Amino acid sequence: MFFEGSEKKATIVIDSEQLSLLNDVSDDFWSQLVQRSDAHILSSIKNNDCKAFLLSESSLFVWHDRLLIITCGSTRLVRAVEYFIQKMGVDTVQQIIYQRKNEYFAHAQSSTFGDDIKLLNHYITGKAHRFGELDNHHNYIFHHDNGVHASSNDKTYELLAYQISKKASDKLTSSGLTTKEIREFLQLEQLFSDFILDDFVFDPFGYSINAINGQQYLTIHVTPQENSSYVSIGSNVNLIKLAPRFLSILSPKSFDLLSFNEADFSEFTATFIPKNYVATALVNQQLNSNYLVCFANYIMPQQAFSPATNIDLLAQSHAL
Amino acid sequence: MFFEGSEKKATIVIDSEQLSLLNDVSDDFWSQLVQRSDAHILSSIKNNDCKAFLLSESSLFVWHDRLLIITCGSTRLVRAVEYFIQKMGVDTVQQIIYQRKNEYFAHAQSSTFGDDIKLLNHYITGKAHRFGELDNHHNYIFHHDNGVHASSNDKTYELLAYQISKKASDKLTSSGLTTKEIREFLQLEQLFSDFILDDFVFDPFGYSINAINGQQYLTIHVTPQENSSYVSIGSNVNLIKLAPRFLSILSPKSFDLLSFNEADFSEFTATFIPKNYVATALVNQQLNSNYLVCFANYIMPQQAFSPATNIDLLAQSHAL
Repeated sequence: MFFEGSEKKATIVIDSEQLSLLNDVSDDFWSQLVQRSDAHILSSIKNNDCKAFLLSESSLFVWHDRLLIITCGSTRLVRAVEYFIQKMGVDTVQQIIYQRKNEYFAHAQSSTFGDDIKLLNHYITGKAHRFGELDNHHNYIFHHDNGVHASSNDKTYELLAYQISKKASDKLTSSGLTTKEIREFLQLEQLFSDFILDDFVFDPFGYSINAINGQQYLTIHVTPQENSSYVSIGSNVNLIKLAPRFLSILSPKSFDLLSFNEADFSEFTATFIPKNYVATALVNQQLNSNYLVCFANYIMPQQAFSPATNIDLLAQSHAL
Repeated sequence: MFFEGSEKKATIVIDSEQLSLLNDVSDDFWSQLVQRSDAHILSSIKNNDCKAFLLSESSLFVWHDRLLIITCGSTRLVRAVEYFIQKMGVDTVQQIIYQRKNEYFAHAQSSTFGDDIKLLNHYITGKAHRFGELDNHHNYIFHHDNGVHASSNDKTYELLAYQISKKASDKLTSSGLTTKEIREFLQLEQLFSDFILDDFVFDPFGYSINAINGQQYLTIHVTPQENSSYVSIGSNVNLIKLAPRFLSILSPKSFDLLSFNEADFSEFTATFIPKNYVATALVNQQLNSNYLVCFANYIMPQQAFSPATNIDLLAQSHAL
């Protein structure tokens, strides 16, 4: 079985003087919005600043002035964005950032990044960039180019880990695993002790967690199967500082860092990224909306040969 | 404009006591076979051991007992293999190796590797492996598993270079470029002085060359455009020994080496791969047909940040 872990991600910022997304919008609206992308809501947690929905494919976070939605698999996230614009009106929207990682089963997607942007262009105009080389990990990022500038305090981080160690993969695919065991394995209660947590173990495997603390959020999605493993971590807490801990738990062969508005990206990576990883990509770009986007891919150099991966043709022919 | 440089490749070995593919098969047959994959023949060269056809998308080489066909873009090579089996009869075939590199515009392909193998399974049975991680450069290789063993002298090599230097890309995309200028730039007449050469410059750019000398062959295909550049070199001459020369000319950010039956792959790479590259993948596997397949990916670690790549949404929306 294959599963496309690579995510699509949208951030929508509104004028919060008109409306509070957190207080003035019903759960039914969010349920409808999520359904537009072919996902559904599993559960939610809330504090005074943020509501976090755990989805069948990833997560939705809603604050007073913004939302963040992340979906994976073959979902069509852009339709959720379209639904938001149609229902709320394009004048409510101050900024939209729409992002897609390169996919590993691209032929199984119902649309391309270009298709998605074509759809958004019916409502808003913007610019798009590719962060990373075509033949390496990369992210396509579109942003609404409307003269509205982001606050430099609006910092977010992604840490995306690929091909985690056999030990971590075995642990995370063991049968009957509970949320408690996974939280412990990932040391989440230690690292995020002040956060409210909401998590779910998928069948036969896979794990998602949302965590909030005031305006702070953390979301982790685990696709643990060996040979196609992927762990995505997103937060407005500095994940570059936390990278040593996660890398030591997961020991991925490769990982990406992506940040919005982290001016000290270089300094942080120089300090916190373990020296057994080397950078294969380093990209930064100031968007017109004033967001500084930094992207890096790191790999663990290989010293010894591994055997090839057997392909079960019957089981996987639809995926390859 | 985008172009899928990633190739599909098939090697078919026959019982040459029954038939000489070189002497007993008409050009019309090869023309029909090539057309089945949605390519066509541009030109050919021949000696007593080999005939090499330059194709609209890559190359076909025919020897007495075997053929090698390589096609790129959105061609469907497996249909050429099917045509061969149907016309020649499955009993003529001793070995088929069918190979596909990971594609960068996979959604634009008319079939997946799994689809292709499903088609071949109507005629032959075999095994498939993936060389390289899902999130890194990788090759899918299927081989006919019929108890026939390959000769250990049957050695072939691929050197695949990605994201060549701006200098090389600028040179190879300059307008009005002649075959002579490209041969000089790639130092082909020096390196392969005893070979008969046949080459072609595509419009607006792109370059293919076939070269033969006795049973030896060389084929090079250049997709030179900046930000998605790719140069593929295939030969039964030891390309690991020649890597320093090609790497110094092209200065790619990343390259793959793939070999069949090179028992000294480790020793050659230790000796010949420049130390400014690090290995991100090292895979070897003995196939049931006795071929030893070795695969490596190397990257040039990045020290400095580059800007993101602008995406022209109107021009590229079909490609992303």
